[in-house]
Amino acid sequence: MQLITLLTDFGTADGFVGEVKGELLTRAPEALPIDIGHDIPPGDIAAASWALERIWDRFPEGTVHLVVVDPGGGGSRRGVIARVGGRWYVGPDNGTLTRVLVHHTVEEVRVLEVEKDGGSKQGKNGRPVSRTFHGRDVFAPAAARLATGESLAALGTSADPSQLVRYHLPRPVEHGGNVRGSVTHIDRFGNLVTDIPSRSLAPSALVEIGGEVISGVRSTYASVEPGQLVALVGSTGMLEISVRDGNAAARLAVERGHTVHARPERD
Amino acid sequence: MQLITLLTDFGTADGFVGEVKGELLTRAPEALPIDIGHDIPPGDIAAASWALERIWDRFPEGTVHLVVVDPGGGGSRRGVIARVGGRWYVGPDNGTLTRVLVHHTVEEVRVLEVEKDGGSKQGKNGRPVSRTFHGRDVFAPAAARLATGESLAALGTSADPSQLVRYHLPRPVEHGGNVRGSVTHIDRFGNLVTDIPSRSLAPSALVEIGGEVISGVRSTYASVEPGQLVALVGSTGMLEISVRDGNAAARLAVERGHTVHARPERD
Amino acid sequence: MQLITLLTDFGTADGFVGEVKGELLTRAPEALPIDIGHDIPPGDIAAASWALERIWDRFPEGTVHLVVVDPGGGGSRRGVIARVGGRWYVGPDNGTLTRVLVHHTVEEVRVLEVEKDGGSKQGKNGRPVSRTFHGRDVFAPAAARLATGESLAALGTSADPSQLVRYHLPRPVEHGGNVRGSVTHIDRFGNLVTDIPSRSLAPSALVEIGGEVISGVRSTYASVEPGQLVALVGSTGMLEISVRDGNAAARLAVERGHTVHARPERD
Repeated sequence: MQLITLLTDFGTADGFVGEVKGELLTRAPEALPIDIGHDIPPGDIAAASWALERIWDRFPEGTVHLVVVDPGGGGSRRGVIARVGGRWYVGPDNGTLTRVLVHHTVEEVRVLEVEKDGGSKQGKNGRPVSRTFHGRDVFAPAAARLATGESLAALGTSADPSQLVRYHLPRPVEHGGNVRGSVTHIDRFGNLVTDIPSRSLAPSALVEIGGEVISGVRSTYASVEPGQLVALVGSTGMLEISVRDGNAAARLAVERGHTVHARPERD
Repeated sequence: MQLITLLTDFGTADGFVGEVKGELLTRAPEALPIDIGHDIPPGDIAAASWALERIWDRFPEGTVHLVVVDPGGGGSRRGVIARVGGRWYVGPDNGTLTRVLVHHTVEEVRVLEVEKDGGSKQGKNGRPVSRTFHGRDVFAPAAARLATGESLAALGTSADPSQLVRYHLPRPVEHGGNVRGSVTHIDRFGNLVTDIPSRSLAPSALVEIGGEVISGVRSTYASVEPGQLVALVGSTGMLEISVRDGNAAARLAVERGHTVHARPERD
Repeated sequence: MQLITLLTDFGTADGFVGEVKGELLTRAPEALPIDIGHDIPPGDIAAASWALERIWDRFPEGTVHLVVVDPGGGGSRRGVIARVGGRWYVGPDNGTLTRVLVHHTVEEVRVLEVEKDGGSKQGKNGRPVSRTFHGRDVFAPAAARLATGESLAALGTSADPSQLVRYHLPRPVEHGGNVRGSVTHIDRFGNLVTDIPSRSLAPSALVEIGGEVISGVRSTYASVEPGQLVALVGSTGMLEISVRDGNAAARLAVERGHTVHARPERD
């Protein structure tokens, strides 16, 4: 079956996810919607991009990733279909793809036609196209049409791949064995995921963050006692700071974007 | 595949949703359960009805909507199957259908037989039918039997469609171009959805709520600056009050049921 | 289709669930992932075990239950496949199965091979096997291989069923008609589920908990007025203490493990 994943900030109390799934399954009865999650913080494009980077090519080639984290719920940004590394993105062109584009090449972009006077025009299901819920009225129909094999030409006009919106991704700075990076994500467990890759880290490195110095980079949480801080290479391949069986973000009072230093151990 | 949607207040930490899905898939192996959401506030029939109205006919004809928001978890209310506008409702007859019934005709109602001395009697799977978890023991089995094409006659006794329980829906009052309505739902984003339809609103209308006066009805959130209040016609076709990139409910300290006024702009 | 249920503490904001589903669907395209829930409190093995007990055999024989609540995210515990009562468990051998093992016999155990130097070795998808996200890198691949019918022998080495890790489950103590048990779970609604079975309860029993005495064991929440405490036999077949349309845990300030007494009514 054609997989369509769903990643949104809709929450699961209002029925918005259901509206999107209804549009998908009415138009593409053979598609299988797969929930990634609907609890991206409202409008948080960076959090959506982080999650999307993780899942992007864990799914088979041809998977449609329908991603709707759309602050302003319409506004002037474009809606796009993009083929990137063999998978499809359908959603707003607002930077959500930024982290995926670090690793993958854009192979094709189509700009979706949005009824400019939505609310008065009828969509293909005979209902008005809203100006504020493109997830339901623009992106879900586009994802369904893609899933049913409709030609790209019918779905939108071709556009320049290099023009996809990207937000600024700070890069870690390395100098004489010292690396300064930042926290790119705080996960459910309070782990602080950074942008410092494992190759920049000696096992004996000192990691400084939030006024604490952590000695050594371990390979598992269990390398320290419960309640202790630990620096390790996490499942993204990047430096993470954690508290075993605890919450590092709360302990260190650190938020996304916070600076982290790693340096070779010296006496 | 036969779609069975699930809308509940079970949350996703206790396994209740899993029990229901297990019963569905054991009895109807060809059915595809589709999560709408399980985070309806506990026992909040009005919130369930609002979400159900949104999704009802976004799904194809014949879809089974299994909806269990059942304060008292049993008690004396009936359990029903109802065909409404070509889709099926399976759940307690406690008002959850109220908002759907504004738009759609009830075509058929069957009252489910509930083991009156549940807890001692065995269900068809050889286990006791509980008195408190009809979602698992009564409604899921009924939805599965419906999905597998069992005859309605076998599922329950026919009942009068006009007797379905409805709660009182206040209606907006219009007088000389002035409309007084109320907030019917507050969504995840803090948007205040009202019951004032777009046809009652001039683009230049003044909207009063929570001590604030908003001038003009816009078509997108992006019509105002971030952090500003905006009145617009939302994706339900009704007047909504929002804060761009913010939370209107928190800003205005307004709850569901709060009064909202719209009047033509005058000097 | 081969069912693979998912029960985790991953939450739904980070993409972890998506990574696991991607691995499953890439390796077992015919499998159908079914969400049980991802909001088990972080690392709470007892809560996972309680939910797993509820769902275990609600699903058809042959169902694969992929359960990842894995404090330490790797560490030294084993990863296992276990066939228990005709269904499959795939996950860490850390006690999560404890409550299921009260009711069902272990038919087979296989210990999964985990790359001991994960992070440097390549998994079968050509990516490193992380040391901290076995849900994605060890358990999802194993569940997928099981779902596609791969031989058990290829999946892991056989192990002694009696060696599966179990945590201590306190048992209620009965003496002369008095029963002392404890709260085993607090559900979303604040209901206090205990380990006192219905057979130990006379309808006229007195139930003592949190300084309150409740007279009589009812069969439905609706047996009392809204806001009142009620003792009843819940959907697990065990004594529950609830507040009708309210939250008993909050009212009584009771946590999991709290003692509850039931005794025959005497004057």
